[in-house]
Amino acid sequence: MRIYDLIAKKRDGGTHTRAELEAIVGGYVRGDVADYQMAAWMMAVYLRGMTPGETAELTDVMAHSGEMVDLSSIPGIKVDKHSTGGVGDKTTLVIAPLVAACGVPIAKMSGRGLGHTGGTVDKMESVPGTRTALGREEFLSQVRQIGLAVIGQSEGIAVADKKMYALRDVTATVSCIPLIASSIMSKKLASGADAILLDVTTGTGAFMKTVEEGIELAKCMVEIGTRNGRRVAALITDMDTPLGHNIGNSMEVAESMDVLKGCGPADLTEVCLQLAAQMLVLADKGSAEECRALAEKALADGSGFKKCCEMFAAQGGDVRVLEDSSLFAPPQASWELRADQEGYIVANDAERIGSASVLLGAGRQKKGDALDFAAGIRMHKKRGDYVRKGDLLATFYGAPEKFAAAEQEYRRGLRYGPELPPAEKLIHALVTKDGVQRF
Amino acid sequence: MRIYDLIAKKRDGGTHTRAELEAIVGGYVRGDVADYQMAAWMMAVYLRGMTPGETAELTDVMAHSGEMVDLSSIPGIKVDKHSTGGVGDKTTLVIAPLVAACGVPIAKMSGRGLGHTGGTVDKMESVPGTRTALGREEFLSQVRQIGLAVIGQSEGIAVADKKMYALRDVTATVSCIPLIASSIMSKKLASGADAILLDVTTGTGAFMKTVEEGIELAKCMVEIGTRNGRRVAALITDMDTPLGHNIGNSMEVAESMDVLKGCGPADLTEVCLQLAAQMLVLADKGSAEECRALAEKALADGSGFKKCCEMFAAQGGDVRVLEDSSLFAPPQASWELRADQEGYIVANDAERIGSASVLLGAGRQKKGDALDFAAGIRMHKKRGDYVRKGDLLATFYGAPEKFAAAEQEYRRGLRYGPELPPAEKLIHALVTKDGVQRF
Repeated sequence: MRIYDLIAKKRDGGTHTRAELEAIVGGYVRGDVADYQMAAWMMAVYLRGMTPGETAELTDVMAHSGEMVDLSSIPGIKVDKHSTGGVGDKTTLVIAPLVAACGVPIAKMSGRGLGHTGGTVDKMESVPGTRTALGREEFLSQVRQIGLAVIGQSEGIAVADKKMYALRDVTATVSCIPLIASSIMSKKLASGADAILLDVTTGTGAFMKTVEEGIELAKCMVEIGTRNGRRVAALITDMDTPLGHNIGNSMEVAESMDVLKGCGPADLTEVCLQLAAQMLVLADKGSAEECRALAEKALADGSGFKKCCEMFAAQGGDVRVLEDSSLFAPPQASWELRADQEGYIVANDAERIGSASVLLGAGRQKKGDALDFAAGIRMHKKRGDYVRKGDLLATFYGAPEKFAAAEQEYRRGLRYGPELPPAEKLIHALVTKDGVQRF
Repeated sequence: MRIYDLIAKKRDGGTHTRAELEAIVGGYVRGDVADYQMAAWMMAVYLRGMTPGETAELTDVMAHSGEMVDLSSIPGIKVDKHSTGGVGDKTTLVIAPLVAACGVPIAKMSGRGLGHTGGTVDKMESVPGTRTALGREEFLSQVRQIGLAVIGQSEGIAVADKKMYALRDVTATVSCIPLIASSIMSKKLASGADAILLDVTTGTGAFMKTVEEGIELAKCMVEIGTRNGRRVAALITDMDTPLGHNIGNSMEVAESMDVLKGCGPADLTEVCLQLAAQMLVLADKGSAEECRALAEKALADGSGFKKCCEMFAAQGGDVRVLEDSSLFAPPQASWELRADQEGYIVANDAERIGSASVLLGAGRQKKGDALDFAAGIRMHKKRGDYVRKGDLLATFYGAPEKFAAAEQEYRRGLRYGPELPPAEKLIHALVTKDGVQRF
């Protein structure tokens, strides 16, 4: 099987067999297939597409290119959750404890932030002492004991994806549904959960700009999971404006704890409850309504917050900051951003806000950049709010020399108008193997 | 101008500006654009295509990536000729002298053989002493003095093409009209002739398998040349069965000399006269009929053969072998291939015959392979001939251990039938900027 012929087959619109996909992906990981050949093949995939069966096979082949985590020593239906990335997206820190508090084991690997989107592992590390790199046995043992562990994704997971993603990133083959879906799902298949809830964010701050694109990606991922024997559902959520008020690592932990304590922002709380309910549905805990009630109860009775503290404690974190966020290390300085005109805020572009937070030091421009855990943005006014000139829009935290550039970026995403903008849906649709339910 | 954005533009079906093409091609030659980026871009070009204007610009940019030969010191309209490659294609050795004998200066750079197709430079070097690597001044001076020089293509011509071709060859982006046409024409533009006659071969032994594909490629190349201020015409010729009887370097020189002496095979002679006539038309020597008469005269009066001898003598070649081909170094051994059934030969696949000649040592499997100049095939019976079992089909020349494999390959291209196959056209069409004339 010559790689030349395999590239030509996809170029001409053919459908690969599993053996062919193994030759392409395996050859690339081994170095027998050169970067330029993989780049040509991926461009052909971009323009010719892949069948659902082909995409599912590709994903499984990519998953098997690295370590396959075995969660079978943990009793019950293990449920994983993945978000396609957003700004101020702190839902994992709320829903993993909530769902675990309802008796569903969560053994989750999470990513770090890059570009305008943040990552759960970075947020966790803003809690002093927290270890996010546990050994495999320690990880499994923690889940068996307390039902919950969230750690950084191991380097050995889906190694083909890492190499392919780096190449896509420099060859304009990123925005391709089969390649995005197989990239995400290969890591989820390798991570070993029985069921996966996908949070597909859409809007200006997300990778998928429109709801329809989000639904298309979700359908592809649900199909991949189903064909590979996993239960999968996806919620299409909104990311035009960040959820909650806080962007930045320790600030987002603080806001998540507010939700778990029952005093968080309404939008964030609602999205978390819906995501948690869907995870419980996947774990056979009842109907959507029953599961929603379970999640609400775990919030109301404080069992979710308690589970979160257990997890941080087990991973070495100082849980006092979870109880009282004023104990987090303070930022170097703060800066007030005020409205320069009167009117309704009609747009508050999440991507710009994410970029502004990166400029403040809360995120990374490139891999390996150091983070300022205390840096970030607190939004006092958001889309839909009416402001007068001089009203406080947001407070920036971080190093003073970074405020001017961050303010400029933040303002570029801000638009005022004379009328109240139509309310945004928080959740647009639910995608399962049975179809799409729009809200 | 980021290469990522340029790849994305072509991926999405956009049309590049000249500045963008310069950034892509120039960046690739400089090494700023990586192989994998060029591979992704070329696959996008393969699947999205290029406009005629874009293809013409790309070609000119590729031509200017290396040395531009200046033929202005040679008076008159300089005409070049290019064949897209064939088996037993010895036309250059006939028509360059014929056209030069009619007073049109020929300063031609030719290639070497690779795979199943041969190259003029290899054939010339089978004449003992012949130098095909002349310095630029010696080359021009020879054309000024005797009106004719054929040398190997300089390494400095269209350097972008060399690098791009090598990459296309391993990324399944070879068979793409804009990329094929720009590859060929960039070298022709850089070679400096005012007019270019293209011999676009079609059939089993050629790169373009059908006449329609050949016409499409020819139209693209004529348009490229015209848009870049050159006179261009193309003949679509047949390459299902090799022209003449001989395949192999010194054997093809001998057969070419037979044509120039007026005693060559009818098919080869006819194609050479038509190609020569079209070159004379491009050089403003008269109408097609007048030019055909001029070419016939140069054949009949021996001035073409005389011109050929002058060229070889000027380049150090031993012209005695041109006068008497029995003076060529003899082959190591010979082998007779006989008909194993009775009937008409209905197919005599040129590609198989070419491959058989490579197995005999007459061509190269890969760049740099040494050649056996005396090795080759003499076809006694060709498509359309009736044979009885045991009749002599062909004689192979070369090293005895190679005969069995070559015979197997030759026989794979051979088919017999009960009826005389329909006669094949030698020339299918003429393509000029005014349109397509089919024969």
